[in-house]
Amino acid sequence: MVTIGIVGAGLRGRLFAGALEGQPDVTVVGLAEPSATVAEEARDATGLPVTASHSELLEKFDPDAVIVATPDFAHREIAVEVAEAGKHLLIEKPVATTSDDAHAIAAAVHRAGVRCLVGFENRWNPHVVQAKAAMASVGEPITASATLSNSFFVPTTMLSWAGQSSPAWFLMPHTVDLLLWLTGSKPVSVSAVGSRGVLAKRGIDTWDVVHALLTFDDGSTATLSSAWTLPDAGDGIVDFRFQVIGTEGSVTADLSHQGLTVVSDKYRSAWPVSGRIGRSQVGPAVWMVQDFAAGLVDGGDLGPGIDHGVLVTDIICAIEQAITTGQTVRPFQT
Amino acid sequence: MVTIGIVGAGLRGRLFAGALEGQPDVTVVGLAEPSATVAEEARDATGLPVTASHSELLEKFDPDAVIVATPDFAHREIAVEVAEAGKHLLIEKPVATTSDDAHAIAAAVHRAGVRCLVGFENRWNPHVVQAKAAMASVGEPITASATLSNSFFVPTTMLSWAGQSSPAWFLMPHTVDLLLWLTGSKPVSVSAVGSRGVLAKRGIDTWDVVHALLTFDDGSTATLSSAWTLPDAGDGIVDFRFQVIGTEGSVTADLSHQGLTVVSDKYRSAWPVSGRIGRSQVGPAVWMVQDFAAGLVDGGDLGPGIDHGVLVTDIICAIEQAITTGQTVRPFQT
Amino acid sequence: MVTIGIVGAGLRGRLFAGALEGQPDVTVVGLAEPSATVAEEARDATGLPVTASHSELLEKFDPDAVIVATPDFAHREIAVEVAEAGKHLLIEKPVATTSDDAHAIAAAVHRAGVRCLVGFENRWNPHVVQAKAAMASVGEPITASATLSNSFFVPTTMLSWAGQSSPAWFLMPHTVDLLLWLTGSKPVSVSAVGSRGVLAKRGIDTWDVVHALLTFDDGSTATLSSAWTLPDAGDGIVDFRFQVIGTEGSVTADLSHQGLTVVSDKYRSAWPVSGRIGRSQVGPAVWMVQDFAAGLVDGGDLGPGIDHGVLVTDIICAIEQAITTGQTVRPFQT
Amino acid sequence: MVTIGIVGAGLRGRLFAGALEGQPDVTVVGLAEPSATVAEEARDATGLPVTASHSELLEKFDPDAVIVATPDFAHREIAVEVAEAGKHLLIEKPVATTSDDAHAIAAAVHRAGVRCLVGFENRWNPHVVQAKAAMASVGEPITASATLSNSFFVPTTMLSWAGQSSPAWFLMPHTVDLLLWLTGSKPVSVSAVGSRGVLAKRGIDTWDVVHALLTFDDGSTATLSSAWTLPDAGDGIVDFRFQVIGTEGSVTADLSHQGLTVVSDKYRSAWPVSGRIGRSQVGPAVWMVQDFAAGLVDGGDLGPGIDHGVLVTDIICAIEQAITTGQTVRPFQT
Repeated sequence: MVTIGIVGAGLRGRLFAGALEGQPDVTVVGLAEPSATVAEEARDATGLPVTASHSELLEKFDPDAVIVATPDFAHREIAVEVAEAGKHLLIEKPVATTSDDAHAIAAAVHRAGVRCLVGFENRWNPHVVQAKAAMASVGEPITASATLSNSFFVPTTMLSWAGQSSPAWFLMPHTVDLLLWLTGSKPVSVSAVGSRGVLAKRGIDTWDVVHALLTFDDGSTATLSSAWTLPDAGDGIVDFRFQVIGTEGSVTADLSHQGLTVVSDKYRSAWPVSGRIGRSQVGPAVWMVQDFAAGLVDGGDLGPGIDHGVLVTDIICAIEQAITTGQTVRPFQT
Repeated sequence: MVTIGIVGAGLRGRLFAGALEGQPDVTVVGLAEPSATVAEEARDATGLPVTASHSELLEKFDPDAVIVATPDFAHREIAVEVAEAGKHLLIEKPVATTSDDAHAIAAAVHRAGVRCLVGFENRWNPHVVQAKAAMASVGEPITASATLSNSFFVPTTMLSWAGQSSPAWFLMPHTVDLLLWLTGSKPVSVSAVGSRGVLAKRGIDTWDVVHALLTFDDGSTATLSSAWTLPDAGDGIVDFRFQVIGTEGSVTADLSHQGLTVVSDKYRSAWPVSGRIGRSQVGPAVWMVQDFAAGLVDGGDLGPGIDHGVLVTDIICAIEQAITTGQTVRPFQT
Repeated sequence: MVTIGIVGAGLRGRLFAGALEGQPDVTVVGLAEPSATVAEEARDATGLPVTASHSELLEKFDPDAVIVATPDFAHREIAVEVAEAGKHLLIEKPVATTSDDAHAIAAAVHRAGVRCLVGFENRWNPHVVQAKAAMASVGEPITASATLSNSFFVPTTMLSWAGQSSPAWFLMPHTVDLLLWLTGSKPVSVSAVGSRGVLAKRGIDTWDVVHALLTFDDGSTATLSSAWTLPDAGDGIVDFRFQVIGTEGSVTADLSHQGLTVVSDKYRSAWPVSGRIGRSQVGPAVWMVQDFAAGLVDGGDLGPGIDHGVLVTDIICAIEQAITTGQTVRPFQT
Repeated sequence: MVTIGIVGAGLRGRLFAGALEGQPDVTVVGLAEPSATVAEEARDATGLPVTASHSELLEKFDPDAVIVATPDFAHREIAVEVAEAGKHLLIEKPVATTSDDAHAIAAAVHRAGVRCLVGFENRWNPHVVQAKAAMASVGEPITASATLSNSFFVPTTMLSWAGQSSPAWFLMPHTVDLLLWLTGSKPVSVSAVGSRGVLAKRGIDTWDVVHALLTFDDGSTATLSSAWTLPDAGDGIVDFRFQVIGTEGSVTADLSHQGLTVVSDKYRSAWPVSGRIGRSQVGPAVWMVQDFAAGLVDGGDLGPGIDHGVLVTDIICAIEQAITTGQTVRPFQT
């Protein structure tokens, strides 16, 4: 039996708790949440004990593993302490929002010899899994591009901490990981541009949009685009498209609608492949956390680890640096 | 612990066996398969015992429930015998391909008081589940339409028994069930047309295409179209589209590609939401059979039952009758 | 020099007048319009004289040809009188909304020996023209389907005479002609269903939706669907899709958006291929009327003639009859 | 009456000649073409005289205007000489493939005081015209992106001079112009990456793919992507998509298929809005050249002029420089 604690009792923490309910040989022992209100809600929603801090969670329940589901910028202290306590880790993407934090977490993980999955949940997204399978048929990668954007709803309403994040930190970890996974290429250089002002006028002082160009050591290239300023009048909150062109074929995906269009004043369309299908909870995050638990039980592969997570954080730091300096940066050359 | 036997050890039978592996409180005790070759393959693939007949399966393993995964036209004898033996049933759609057979099975199920799920797996299709959820926002149904077609590959290569089935029997059970589920309307009349000849020239003596018009007791209408003659040069074997227009909105779905396009000589695109995602087997059929087993374990709802299955068969019989007679038929009026 | 008069000075009449402006060897001599208000507007918009009736138009200007752009049900008297006066005709589709009217017009046209184009403008729709070209590559037609629907806007706001028309009369002439043109098949039987009530509650006493099944003398089949009840919350007023499946390929079209999506509170998307491109007026209706004039000038082919127009009207009458009687009708057998 | 000569008698030159046939007050006096074979073909196809050089064309026919339809890199000598001879100009995009050439042409045009249209034909593309109209409803531009790519067919088969051009020079003039037109923004900086090798292996020594990031003086940004390596197994030779996100809405276009899909071994899908519709030649290039001629006749606006054309060339030169140097370049700052 593997015991798991969850730090962060917001939507994601509760989703993970629910996804692990009834999984064989796994027990969620409790959650940790500093906000008393959120803690109370989580207690009601999950029936699980909720401590005020991750330290208290560790102390009280001594779980075998901990899921870090706090906001992007609030991973370091928790992850380092958890690793030092010898607990395995699932850390939500991005590992951290500074290279320092990411490397500190990685060092702690390596020192302690604990296992660690970074939550790049697109590895469990059915369309992305199919795209990965298709890569075997398209030859060597020539170039790739990915757009992942949100409507204003996400930074202005869904996230309370959008001002401390950005389209680069909230969205690009998904697409950076996606392209690295699909192509297997290693990054060499990063150029990027971005703009601010529209969200700032709404009180959220962060980038409106970020675009980046990457080159890789196999000579291939990629573009990444993420905006937080799509109109809310559209019928979804996510615009997700990508394309890989290989020497013998191409994969092109537009996952924004997945073929389903609802026109109604009362409906906001959701992602078809998430939520509940009959008795099954489905969706990338659900399958990811269930596989994490199963891997802890049987020692099997967990998925993308801490070093990959650090690389993704380093790439996004490089994107930020490229925007700020207005110059191409090459942090990955040996 | 619930024990389950599976009759029919082809692709579907094995898929069900795999989907039930490791489900809590459920054991698949064995399969039944008359073909020695197929039986041998299934033994290798599943590691389960395979008997030569359903009777032998019942006798040898006395399971609590039986899944009938034989070809469409070969359900009656098995299902009746299984019901009479007091076993619960999952019968693949359609229940049967004659009204007689369907009603005989229903009578046996009712007499024996066993539980029965008819395998309308679109109830577990994520896009259809979302469409059903969206129906709450589109007002009263005015009209609906559904197209579900296959490329030549399905009747000529995938199915060995296509000549004993048809687009009406193989495809329309899905779309008839879909529209009945989405709208909740009761059928009144059926008109239909069809044509034959193209498949017949390839040695498969059945309908090339069938179209039907339905009216319902709430005054609404529907069209259904299914062809088995789409070109194989396209990049999928299924064309699945539907639309419901309500008084306050509409739902329109094109599930043929679901947003993923692969161009390559070597790739035949599949359905994103089926197969394996990490450690999870996913897909409508998987979730359906797992819910069937779970419902047997805890007594919960199984999904669409035998009477609904009979209605769907009756509608398709009416479609056949309407084609043959060239007249509108009204078999459902009281 | 060919002189042309236009009967009906609404949107279509003015569009035709504008499209003929500056065409070589063609002069629009005037319009006819019974409504004084509409006539005044048309005078301002076009700078052309507007008479109160078609008779006055004929008398005053004695044009070589007349375009009949009055509402669907108001063609007969005008067209017959124009033909009897020996003038060539462009009659908007449908020729008429009763078989009697259509045949009376055809008789007058044939008696007078005048030339006549029925305005099936999809023959000049770029996407349909491409689809027609593609038909050469898809083998013999097996089956076809076409949906052409409008949002509530069209019957409730755009048309003042919607109550005297229907989705069958306003929309299906386009799709009936489309399928006849693409496949070249001859109709044999018609089944149809429809429903009323939703538009009636808004004061427009006509069909909400009509569906029809057709069989053809080459054994092929078709379905036609037209609704006037799509939600206005969508971003267009037209849903236009069709598919032809042939023995060696298929043509599938979704012309509702043609690849352009605008999300904005202030924008109602239009058809990309109509309106003004630089100095050119473009669009199916424009090219149709210009070709009509050019054909009058040089004696070249005008396009679909009166007998084809009568056939389309007869098919839609058969659809109405099939709905009313609830039976399959076979008016075309010899 | 305006007389026009055309330099370059390939596909584009002949298309322009055909498009001007029968235009009021316009005569195409002849073409110029150095290749004897091509000249012979053009003579047969157009019935027009074809001289061996632009100088001979000028000398022999002394046209009022000249259309320069030679390969991208072969504009300077012709355009300068034509301008110096006091003739008006339509120069195909890009004006030139070096800044030097472009500025030399501009200087000659300005010195001679002749009129000049640069052939950015998307200004006459119906979908782009609609997108431009929609811009009025989406507020201030935040960011934009555009992809315009070709399958291998274009560089390997369609163009004999692909090795002297590139995706940047052949495709990006369209998308650079598109974004400048839609947003009205002025460029400030350019970053870019590209790769070579795949086409080189096929004997065409140029870029396989080019990506660029732009910043503008209003703070907005853009990405541009063009590849010449899409698989030929797809059903078109052009992938054209763009998106503009504004403060109050967005415009998203995927013009690759425009809603029409043909599946057949024998068909290669084309652009619906080009070619012949009834008697009308249609398409962006047709309307552009007809408007050029009409503007010469009546003195009206011609469209994007030489200075805009120079700016587009300067941007593409900057993209090349950014790729070569691996650094962001800022050639446009004052």
